[in-house]
Amino acid sequence: MAHIIDHAFYKDSWGTPEMRVVFDERTRMQRWMDIEAALAEVQASLGIIPVAAAEEIRKKAKVANIDEGRMSEQLGRTGHTLVAFLNELERACKAGAGEWIHYGPTTQDIQDTGTVLEMRDAWRILFGNLKRLETASLNLAVRYANLPIVGRTHGQHGLPMTLGMKAASWAAEIRRDLERLKDVPRRAFFIMMHGGVGTQASFGEDAETIVSRLADRFDLLCPPTCWANARDGIAEFQTTLGIVAGTVARIANEIFELSRTEVGEVHEPLAKTVVGSSTMPHKRNAVRSEFTGTLTRIVMNNALLGLQGMMVEHERDTRVWRLDWHSLPESCCLLDRSLLNMAVVLEGLEVDEIGIRRNLEMTGGAILSEAVMFKLGAKVGKQTAHHLLHEAINEAGDTGRTFREAVLSHPKIAATMSASELEGLLDYACYTGTAARQVDAVKALSLELGASDPA
Amino acid sequence: MAHIIDHAFYKDSWGTPEMRVVFDERTRMQRWMDIEAALAEVQASLGIIPVAAAEEIRKKAKVANIDEGRMSEQLGRTGHTLVAFLNELERACKAGAGEWIHYGPTTQDIQDTGTVLEMRDAWRILFGNLKRLETASLNLAVRYANLPIVGRTHGQHGLPMTLGMKAASWAAEIRRDLERLKDVPRRAFFIMMHGGVGTQASFGEDAETIVSRLADRFDLLCPPTCWANARDGIAEFQTTLGIVAGTVARIANEIFELSRTEVGEVHEPLAKTVVGSSTMPHKRNAVRSEFTGTLTRIVMNNALLGLQGMMVEHERDTRVWRLDWHSLPESCCLLDRSLLNMAVVLEGLEVDEIGIRRNLEMTGGAILSEAVMFKLGAKVGKQTAHHLLHEAINEAGDTGRTFREAVLSHPKIAATMSASELEGLLDYACYTGTAARQVDAVKALSLELGASDPA
Amino acid sequence: MAHIIDHAFYKDSWGTPEMRVVFDERTRMQRWMDIEAALAEVQASLGIIPVAAAEEIRKKAKVANIDEGRMSEQLGRTGHTLVAFLNELERACKAGAGEWIHYGPTTQDIQDTGTVLEMRDAWRILFGNLKRLETASLNLAVRYANLPIVGRTHGQHGLPMTLGMKAASWAAEIRRDLERLKDVPRRAFFIMMHGGVGTQASFGEDAETIVSRLADRFDLLCPPTCWANARDGIAEFQTTLGIVAGTVARIANEIFELSRTEVGEVHEPLAKTVVGSSTMPHKRNAVRSEFTGTLTRIVMNNALLGLQGMMVEHERDTRVWRLDWHSLPESCCLLDRSLLNMAVVLEGLEVDEIGIRRNLEMTGGAILSEAVMFKLGAKVGKQTAHHLLHEAINEAGDTGRTFREAVLSHPKIAATMSASELEGLLDYACYTGTAARQVDAVKALSLELGASDPA
Amino acid sequence: MAHIIDHAFYKDSWGTPEMRVVFDERTRMQRWMDIEAALAEVQASLGIIPVAAAEEIRKKAKVANIDEGRMSEQLGRTGHTLVAFLNELERACKAGAGEWIHYGPTTQDIQDTGTVLEMRDAWRILFGNLKRLETASLNLAVRYANLPIVGRTHGQHGLPMTLGMKAASWAAEIRRDLERLKDVPRRAFFIMMHGGVGTQASFGEDAETIVSRLADRFDLLCPPTCWANARDGIAEFQTTLGIVAGTVARIANEIFELSRTEVGEVHEPLAKTVVGSSTMPHKRNAVRSEFTGTLTRIVMNNALLGLQGMMVEHERDTRVWRLDWHSLPESCCLLDRSLLNMAVVLEGLEVDEIGIRRNLEMTGGAILSEAVMFKLGAKVGKQTAHHLLHEAINEAGDTGRTFREAVLSHPKIAATMSASELEGLLDYACYTGTAARQVDAVKALSLELGASDPA
Repeated sequence: MAHIIDHAFYKDSWGTPEMRVVFDERTRMQRWMDIEAALAEVQASLGIIPVAAAEEIRKKAKVANIDEGRMSEQLGRTGHTLVAFLNELERACKAGAGEWIHYGPTTQDIQDTGTVLEMRDAWRILFGNLKRLETASLNLAVRYANLPIVGRTHGQHGLPMTLGMKAASWAAEIRRDLERLKDVPRRAFFIMMHGGVGTQASFGEDAETIVSRLADRFDLLCPPTCWANARDGIAEFQTTLGIVAGTVARIANEIFELSRTEVGEVHEPLAKTVVGSSTMPHKRNAVRSEFTGTLTRIVMNNALLGLQGMMVEHERDTRVWRLDWHSLPESCCLLDRSLLNMAVVLEGLEVDEIGIRRNLEMTGGAILSEAVMFKLGAKVGKQTAHHLLHEAINEAGDTGRTFREAVLSHPKIAATMSASELEGLLDYACYTGTAARQVDAVKALSLELGASDPA
Repeated sequence: MAHIIDHAFYKDSWGTPEMRVVFDERTRMQRWMDIEAALAEVQASLGIIPVAAAEEIRKKAKVANIDEGRMSEQLGRTGHTLVAFLNELERACKAGAGEWIHYGPTTQDIQDTGTVLEMRDAWRILFGNLKRLETASLNLAVRYANLPIVGRTHGQHGLPMTLGMKAASWAAEIRRDLERLKDVPRRAFFIMMHGGVGTQASFGEDAETIVSRLADRFDLLCPPTCWANARDGIAEFQTTLGIVAGTVARIANEIFELSRTEVGEVHEPLAKTVVGSSTMPHKRNAVRSEFTGTLTRIVMNNALLGLQGMMVEHERDTRVWRLDWHSLPESCCLLDRSLLNMAVVLEGLEVDEIGIRRNLEMTGGAILSEAVMFKLGAKVGKQTAHHLLHEAINEAGDTGRTFREAVLSHPKIAATMSASELEGLLDYACYTGTAARQVDAVKALSLELGASDPA
Repeated sequence: MAHIIDHAFYKDSWGTPEMRVVFDERTRMQRWMDIEAALAEVQASLGIIPVAAAEEIRKKAKVANIDEGRMSEQLGRTGHTLVAFLNELERACKAGAGEWIHYGPTTQDIQDTGTVLEMRDAWRILFGNLKRLETASLNLAVRYANLPIVGRTHGQHGLPMTLGMKAASWAAEIRRDLERLKDVPRRAFFIMMHGGVGTQASFGEDAETIVSRLADRFDLLCPPTCWANARDGIAEFQTTLGIVAGTVARIANEIFELSRTEVGEVHEPLAKTVVGSSTMPHKRNAVRSEFTGTLTRIVMNNALLGLQGMMVEHERDTRVWRLDWHSLPESCCLLDRSLLNMAVVLEGLEVDEIGIRRNLEMTGGAILSEAVMFKLGAKVGKQTAHHLLHEAINEAGDTGRTFREAVLSHPKIAATMSASELEGLLDYACYTGTAARQVDAVKALSLELGASDPA
Repeated sequence: MAHIIDHAFYKDSWGTPEMRVVFDERTRMQRWMDIEAALAEVQASLGIIPVAAAEEIRKKAKVANIDEGRMSEQLGRTGHTLVAFLNELERACKAGAGEWIHYGPTTQDIQDTGTVLEMRDAWRILFGNLKRLETASLNLAVRYANLPIVGRTHGQHGLPMTLGMKAASWAAEIRRDLERLKDVPRRAFFIMMHGGVGTQASFGEDAETIVSRLADRFDLLCPPTCWANARDGIAEFQTTLGIVAGTVARIANEIFELSRTEVGEVHEPLAKTVVGSSTMPHKRNAVRSEFTGTLTRIVMNNALLGLQGMMVEHERDTRVWRLDWHSLPESCCLLDRSLLNMAVVLEGLEVDEIGIRRNLEMTGGAILSEAVMFKLGAKVGKQTAHHLLHEAINEAGDTGRTFREAVLSHPKIAATMSASELEGLLDYACYTGTAARQVDAVKALSLELGASDPA
């Protein structure tokens, strides 16, 4: 195989078995057969084609009935993506039933309806795994709602927060992503059965009934007009995958950075059998998070192909819509692997509370200077407080003392605050604000919105 | 000016005055001042800062009170995007009120809340102009619901459809875009007032009340947790702009192609004063549609920056979030111009019914071969019908006769169908299927969903 | 298979057999084995490992010696992309030779050197096929150097040019692309054999000699420093593929548009067996050009992943460099198919000279108004000439007469120019300027620069 | 102003004064005037237009002669980007000289030649600043060629390297970028003076002489054929900017990460006046590097617009080529600022040798396990050595002892190696391999290739 998604050895790093099945070429053909068979049945029910023909078509509409060698040969000869396939199905049908296959539709009717069914299958898998990631994030959020950890801005230690609040931020973002995914179907999961240029003329008087019954059979929506050249639904699906990828990428990057040797606050759950490096045994690589960084970038980049795919010329235009055949399977496989990677990581995350504490202490209390300043400011004025603290910090810088020591020994500060009052301010756990309550709020919102999640 | 969006001469081809105001640097500063003033008032109402200070801050919070020279100088010296601005505001406030400005928030609280207010203003303008484009499309759809026009697939004449159905396809897509836009606010229009690392510790015990009251004042949503590092809402806004751009790009390309010299079915409404080419006076360039093609590509491309902006490291990370300052103004300006361009084009579209008819006739009736085949098939079997028609078409190709002539003179076809029956089939207006009813369906759906549009 | 590049039925529309072999997973593994074997031999030649071990490693370094089942199992267990493979090779080696495999290098040394060899193989194929396309373009350019055809700007008829000049524009662009490709190797085809963080410490004193000898064996360049984290060469390769894709996309789009039903100037060489549409037999779809439009877009989009892959953190960073494993095979397969598509199309292009002539006449001579204006201007002044011609054109528009008729019957123009003089100006072949000489210039430059093409 | 590149307050964070001048709208207009004047002079020298007219045109071809109000008004009325401008120039010329302005060319001739001149000006500035960054990198490389620092892979400590080698990796990449930039002109800096559809018919018999003389005047190349629709040169310029941006982004990210609070190995040279955070005074934000991360992403993203701009339809197509007016100024401004940012950072980089040493020691010697393994392996066999070291490492993990202690106290290792021999292996400076020699090689290559740099 040439593409890494199908590599015998590496494919499970770039996809999941479950998702590969959705997009497997034979699954795809079977889906097309199912659509042809259902169409025949609906047309038979309306007296358009013989009932016996529809029954025979349904019976033979199995991918196993295709002679793959002959089909490949025909495909090469005709250059048409569906005709060879239809010929094989026709050949399999007895008693002239084959005449009634594909009675009215155009190629893209079958292929695009097939694509929608693929998207829906993929959507279900992704929704489930994203929800699993939400649960894992919420569990971390609740468990560590009150564990102080240093909050970082611009790569620098800022102020204390809690590890649970960090995870709550992921959960809140994931929940918004889930809501985005829930919005996609009503603008994208449409049947198409509209004929050559979308007028349904080849379906005769019953055209709308045919479409509507078919839509019911596949539990798809009926669009108000043909969408062969209106690919916005697919674009929305792809950009939503891109947004989900962005969310997962952020989580993966956070785990990667927090497990740097110098930071060492969390670690991926490594099985004992995992090999980090043959020559550098001390390493604890965040393998899954790192790889997720690769996968999610591709998904985001493919979102742009989804947008470009919208610029269809006239009523049908392979130059852009065929992009879907590339990007949808690819993005769904990569994203599903990303979701599973991070679900496993968050579910088994090793939290190094000692490392977290060590980092909190790293600046000798300076990350609490804001707390001191506000309290001091209430007594001596904000400007004066600011000034006094700068003196203490500079003194600490010059003497190598910690912020804590410098503040406690600053005469003017000491004159205003008692040592115990100062010590109270210099307790990380006391300056995490609403962190724990934010965890509660996120959890409550997830529960509330989750009530309308699909089963 | 270096950027075309601000060029004295060209800016109105790359933006609109209305949208430029939203993103003008002084509008932006005034918005920041409004936020600081409102925060002061809320804090005063809770007894956190003196009421008089809040009143003074509100009074002085006018961009006119900034000494721009001094601010520029400070900006260069400090390198900080907000401090210079705050110093100017503080300087303007009398009686020590300046001490109470920006009491608790971090820079990004002000700037991101400002960005949300910008997005909302832009959203309203874009929604209105997109709706105007929907109306223009629907009007065309209804007016030309029954006008036969050739439908084209793969750049080739396919089957007849109606011009109204073509416009209905645009209207249906636009309506889905409007619904997408309506989904954005509840996942993106959040206030932010969370302090250095998002814990709100600097706001004290009343933190949640402050945020909630501020949100009410600006009519923004209150997020369950800080979103300084969760940019998914902005990404959704940007990808939605990308999708809208894709829709507009498709319409613009269609007008461009239909007004090619060889096609000549529609023309942009050119004012007499417009100069197409100084040396080629016969040209009728589709200037607005062509230019819209340029603008929309950039908006789509910027959507990718929206996605990349999600990969924030830790609690705040300028490497990605500052991308918004580039992409949001740019995409909103370009897209607004695109929407207005195409609204003007569709509202005044010149339809050349003679040209449309000429193209329908171009293949001598061959675009109706499907109609003949289905009818013939009902009498002699689909396969035989297919065979007979191929004979007729080949004969037409060999002799230079039209499809119409070849069919009417084919002995076996003539033996099955009367000339008048054939003539009936070869009427373009009779083979447009459900085209007109699709127009009705699109219009009905737009009305139904439009009922919940914002006023 | 889940990815279309590997689909049993469709893969040859998305790639070529020749290119798939380059990136096939077993070719890749064999390449890794070749590198390990060569390294062992070089180390043996320097007395670093036993000669017998190197001989045994070379003998067993065949992909056939891998037990694929066991390797898959190990891969799943260890999560490491190379260790399982090395274990298999070690197992195959007798007499302890396996101990000396991979003596010094890090995983990425083997994999990146392998990637460079892949790129070079792909480069050769692409260069050859792009050159084939250059030849096809030049042949068209020469053959039709003097055939007048309408030149179009903004989708409108502009002035006459020649078909040969159109093809010469492709050839000139392709030649520049070939020169770009020729620049890539000296900045990208480097060996890597630098160990864990690039210092070559694990290779001992002879490190530089090892690398240099290995580079000679594979005919690769020796980099001045380790490039494990400097991916600019790969990025240049990918953006160059993107540029080539842009060139091919332009040609493909041109063929597509020129073969529109309304334009009908050229047609792809369709084999009789090709099926355009089962129900619309009159269509002559530009199938290959259309599909090339799809493929090239993906290649361009992947170029961006090439750029993003440059942002490596520290000495090695899978989050970005692993992107190559996705994008390089994909882009090379898609681009190679694109090149072959368009080579076949240009080599067999059907030129419809009647259609070309018909389009030239479409505006009744108006596309020659510039010629008349310049001649007239030399006699009556440019402004007056402009004025007179506008009168003629407006008159033509009002009366339905052609530009030719209107000009010939305009009293003031007739007073200045004789009818025969005017007729001479209204000869398309006489107003093609330097078109034919541009063809000569392009051909000459291609020959000159082609002299340094690789054999 | 709406675009951040032109914001009164922020523009210098998003561009440089020098680059803004290149793309300033009035510079652009003056360039167009210079081209028109030069064309007139060349045409006069060939007797095509009166010499006096050319002299008058040259005299009046000053942007100051444009009445900007009238021009804006005309622009709005005509919708044409050049006609209003030409009318203004014509109006300024006396004695009928205005008749001879723009005699032969088409709008795009002037605008694209102007764009090439812009690109060349920008190219010079960027080349100079990139070279400055090369020098800064080389200086760091030489100064710290032997300073041991921990090398990191996958975010984890790997092996020792030297700080100089790290900087040498930047210098080597920058040098390749400089060579890329040097390749651009011969494929991109072409004059264009080819008329409506590129045939030069409007220039008469002397067309080639006109173009050639004009090219000489502006020191531009003469293309073999018109390139109005062949935008590959501009695409190469843009993708090369993208690659340079990738290089700068990597350096910026490295500085950002190395100056994290936990890593603290280097710091940006912060002026005392710079304000990091008003409430978190302990922070040392890597402001310039961080911001450079934002800017470079946009440049990379714009490269894709460069590629998309290649898909021109027919002989001229504003839908894509006008993209240049957006992307070129933007990318050049952003990239120039990025280059200056990082030049300043590298030139004044504060290296914290204590912090570097602290990090080297962080794993208690474990990053030297490879060194021990190779030495031990030479005595007891590679497998056994591997096994013994794993025992030592596990023991260290279980007891909390450092790697150093564990190894020194392991009985079997101690039996094979003396303590002093072991201590020698555990010296970071002794296991940096060819790091210092790589610095030499990079410097030598830069000098060699730099010999052909433009002055």
